[in-house]
Amino acid sequence: MRKKNYKQVENKPAVLSDGTPVKDVYVRWLIDDEHDGAKNFAMRRFEIKPKTEVPLHSHPQDHEIYILSGKGKFYNDSGTEETVEKGDVIYIPPNEKHGITNLGKANFVFLCSIPYLSK
Amino acid sequence: MRKKNYKQVENKPAVLSDGTPVKDVYVRWLIDDEHDGAKNFAMRRFEIKPKTEVPLHSHPQDHEIYILSGKGKFYNDSGTEETVEKGDVIYIPPNEKHGITNLGKANFVFLCSIPYLSK
Repeated sequence: MRKKNYKQVENKPAVLSDGTPVKDVYVRWLIDDEHDGAKNFAMRRFEIKPKTEVPLHSHPQDHEIYILSGKGKFYNDSGTEETVEKGDVIYIPPNEKHGITNLGKANFVFLCSIPYLSK
Repeated sequence: MRKKNYKQVENKPAVLSDGTPVKDVYVRWLIDDEHDGAKNFAMRRFEIKPKTEVPLHSHPQDHEIYILSGKGKFYNDSGTEETVEKGDVIYIPPNEKHGITNLGKANFVFLCSIPYLSK
């Protein structure tokens, strides 16, 4: 059993799965294989600054997302748009193209867990 | 992409993995295989009522836990005890015996994701 507070985990600039950096987006890998030996999936906490967008991208890992604070939009390339706030949940299946926009004046903050597919 | 609010998901009485019910503990399966086609892991939201305890138990699935509100304690059978509040994170490895106590006067609420090991 291992405890942390999210503030103890480094808040790193986020990059897309192809290595492209995303300005004004930060991620803490709260639980992962490297630090915790979690072999099945990882829990990350994202902070997206106001007026910031994560462009459409996709990858084989699905996303399980829980909104902690702020207001944002998740969208895909088929015209689906979902506006979300605290307590909302988003599931993004494997390989679905998705993008994210901060719609508010505060940080848009959410948990996003992702599987380790090769394990 | 699929959106829900946690309140839209049924809040069911919780049972241990062997089927034993746990009084005054409720769980919402926010994202799972049955409703969402999530094949890798499931996201659950637990509410533990005041003066309530989840007894020591274990299972092959690891747990990735994020505390949303209230105050509680996670413990194992090796003497480790961790008191947690909002923003704290707990990782419980596969097969580690663990129990949970609500230490506060309000509900103790947390997310707990769990892998689908057979997939």
